[in-house]
Amino acid sequence: MSLRRICILTDGHLDTFTAKTALGLLRYCPEEVVAVLDRKHVGESLVDIVGTGADVPIVGSVEDACKLNANQLLMGVALPGGQLPDTWREFLEHGLQFGMDIVSGMHARLNDDVRFAQLAKENDCTLIDVRNPGPPPPVGSGRAVSTRAKRILTVGSDCNVGKRVTALEVAYELKKRNVNVEFFATGQTGIMISGGGVPADAVISDFLTGYIEQGVVELGDADYVLVEGQGSLLNPAFSPVTLGLIHGAMPDAMILCHHPPRKNMRATEFSVADLGESIVLHEAIMRPLHPSKVIAVSVNCFGMESAAADDAVKAISEQTGLPAVDPIRSGPTLLAETILAL
Amino acid sequence: MSLRRICILTDGHLDTFTAKTALGLLRYCPEEVVAVLDRKHVGESLVDIVGTGADVPIVGSVEDACKLNANQLLMGVALPGGQLPDTWREFLEHGLQFGMDIVSGMHARLNDDVRFAQLAKENDCTLIDVRNPGPPPPVGSGRAVSTRAKRILTVGSDCNVGKRVTALEVAYELKKRNVNVEFFATGQTGIMISGGGVPADAVISDFLTGYIEQGVVELGDADYVLVEGQGSLLNPAFSPVTLGLIHGAMPDAMILCHHPPRKNMRATEFSVADLGESIVLHEAIMRPLHPSKVIAVSVNCFGMESAAADDAVKAISEQTGLPAVDPIRSGPTLLAETILAL
Repeated sequence: MSLRRICILTDGHLDTFTAKTALGLLRYCPEEVVAVLDRKHVGESLVDIVGTGADVPIVGSVEDACKLNANQLLMGVALPGGQLPDTWREFLEHGLQFGMDIVSGMHARLNDDVRFAQLAKENDCTLIDVRNPGPPPPVGSGRAVSTRAKRILTVGSDCNVGKRVTALEVAYELKKRNVNVEFFATGQTGIMISGGGVPADAVISDFLTGYIEQGVVELGDADYVLVEGQGSLLNPAFSPVTLGLIHGAMPDAMILCHHPPRKNMRATEFSVADLGESIVLHEAIMRPLHPSKVIAVSVNCFGMESAAADDAVKAISEQTGLPAVDPIRSGPTLLAETILAL
Repeated sequence: MSLRRICILTDGHLDTFTAKTALGLLRYCPEEVVAVLDRKHVGESLVDIVGTGADVPIVGSVEDACKLNANQLLMGVALPGGQLPDTWREFLEHGLQFGMDIVSGMHARLNDDVRFAQLAKENDCTLIDVRNPGPPPPVGSGRAVSTRAKRILTVGSDCNVGKRVTALEVAYELKKRNVNVEFFATGQTGIMISGGGVPADAVISDFLTGYIEQGVVELGDADYVLVEGQGSLLNPAFSPVTLGLIHGAMPDAMILCHHPPRKNMRATEFSVADLGESIVLHEAIMRPLHPSKVIAVSVNCFGMESAAADDAVKAISEQTGLPAVDPIRSGPTLLAETILAL
C-alpha cells in the first residue's frame, strides 16, 4: 500500500498546457491522488476539464485537502518563469503548517528557502526537491551495457513529442502482463510519478552520463528497463541531455517518438529532420559502442483529425519499415509486443 | 600591456602529467609568467624539465615569487581527487596575505571557502574561480549559425588527444598572419590562458548549448572563431559535453584530433572508433542543422618514434583523403592554410 496521499496544486492552471505534471499524476497514479487544489475550478469534474481523474475532488484550500487526509502537497504545474508567486508561497506554508510534505520540481530548491526549511523542521515535514540529483556518481564509462535487463530508451524527433508518455504506457502495459519491468524517470514529472529517477537537465554536464548509467544499473536486475527520453539529438536546446541519456542508458533498442504536425523544432528555426535520417543518426551514434536499433515509431497524433492521424501512422510505418502506433489513441500493445519479441 | 604577472603553483607536480595547465601557460603566455613555485625543483631550468619557459625562474616560496612582482597565484595542476592539500592551502593563504589574486580551476570554488573569502577581502584581492560559468544564458537555439565569423571547432576521436593545443596553435598561427581570429576556451586551462571562455563541463546540462552559443556570438565579429573542443562524441564519459559544443558552436568546419597509439577510449572499455566512421558521424549530427565538414586531421604523435609518426600521419591522410599533420611536430601551417582556403 502506498503511503503517498497527494494533493496536486495547480491553482488557476488546471486547464492550461502547463499542468502536464498534474495530468501525469492523475493518469499514472490515480490511486495516490486524493485532491486537486485549484480555486478556479472548485467542485467541478476533473474528467470534464482534463479527461481523467474520475473520483478525485477539486478543492479550494489546503485545509479542505487535509480533510481528505492528504499528506503531500505536490506542485502540479511548471510555473512560467520558474518563480514562486506569493499565493503559491502561502499554499506551501499552509501545507507545512498542516504537516504535509511538499514536492517541487522547480530549479530553485525549496530546501534553500529559509522560511520553508524552518516550517518543515517545526512541523516535522519533508521538502522534496525532485530536481536535486544527489551526490555526483562515478564518471560515465558505459557500464550500463552489462545489465541483465534489456534497456529500452524513448528518443524523439523533437522535445515534447511523447517520450515520457510512451515509456510509461509501455511499462504499464508490460506490468499488466506480469513482465518484470522498471520505468526509469529522467524528468521532474516522471520522477514525481514513479518516486525515483534522475533530473537529467538539472545535473552538471560532466556528470550526466554517470548519473544515468548509475540509475539504470540500479534497476538492471529486471527483465526490461524503460528509460524516459528527453529532448532530441537534433534540437540544439536539448541535444547534450539527449546524448547523455543515450550513452548513459546504452539502449538495446530505441523507440522514436514523433508528432507529425510539428514543422520546426521547438525554440529553434530548424525543421524537424526526416525520420529516416533521424533513425540512421540514432543508430550511428550507438554503433561503435553497443549496436542498437530503432525498433518502432510512437506517433503522437495530438490535435489531428482522426482520418489524418490514421493516414500519418500508416505513412510513417511504410516510410520507415517499422511498427508505428499512437499509444494514446490505439493503446501500447504494438509497442509492448515489439519489445517482447526482441 | 598585460597586467597579469603570474606565479604558477605546481608544488611537487611540475614533472608530472597533471601539470598540463602550467605547460599551457608557459607555452602560450610566456610574457605573463614571472615564476613557477615548486619546492622540488627550486633553481632548476624549466626548459630541462618541461621543454619550455626559458627565462622563468623556479622559486620555493610565495615570498620569492613576490620579489619578482608576481600579482597572481595560479594553480597550475589538476590536483588528484580535486581536494586541496594543507600545504597548498598555506600557499594560497600566503599569496592572499601578500596581496596576490588567486586563480583556480577546481570544481570546489575558492569563493565558497570562508577563510579564503575573508583573507581576500582583508587584502583587497580577487579569488578567480574559472569553473564558475556566470549566470545562465538563454536556452540554446542554434543562433551561432548567424555570426559573421567562420566558426572552426576541434573535435576528437577521444579525450586528451590535442583539441585545445590544436585550436590554440592554429589561432596563434592565424594571428601571426594578421588574420582577425579569436580563440574561444571551453576548459579551465584554455580559460586561464586566454582570460575568458566557458567551463563547459561545469555547467548545468540544460544550459550548456546556450552558454557556448552566447560565447561564440560575443566573439562573432572576427573573421574566424577557433573553438576549443572537449571530450569525444563517442566517449560516454564526455559525449554530452562534446555535443553541447558542436550544437552550441554550429561549426562551419571541424578539425578531427587523433592520437594513433590510443587503443581504448579513456575511462572506458570501448575501442577508439575508425576515423572514417567518426568523420561521417560528426558530419551527420550537423547536416540537418548547418552542414559542416571535417576539413583536416590533427595527429597527436606524442610518445611515437619519428618514423612511426611520419607513417601514421601519411596513412591517416590517405585513409581519410584529408590534410593531416601533427601541429606540434610539424607546425600548424597546413591546418591554418586549410582554414584560410574555406
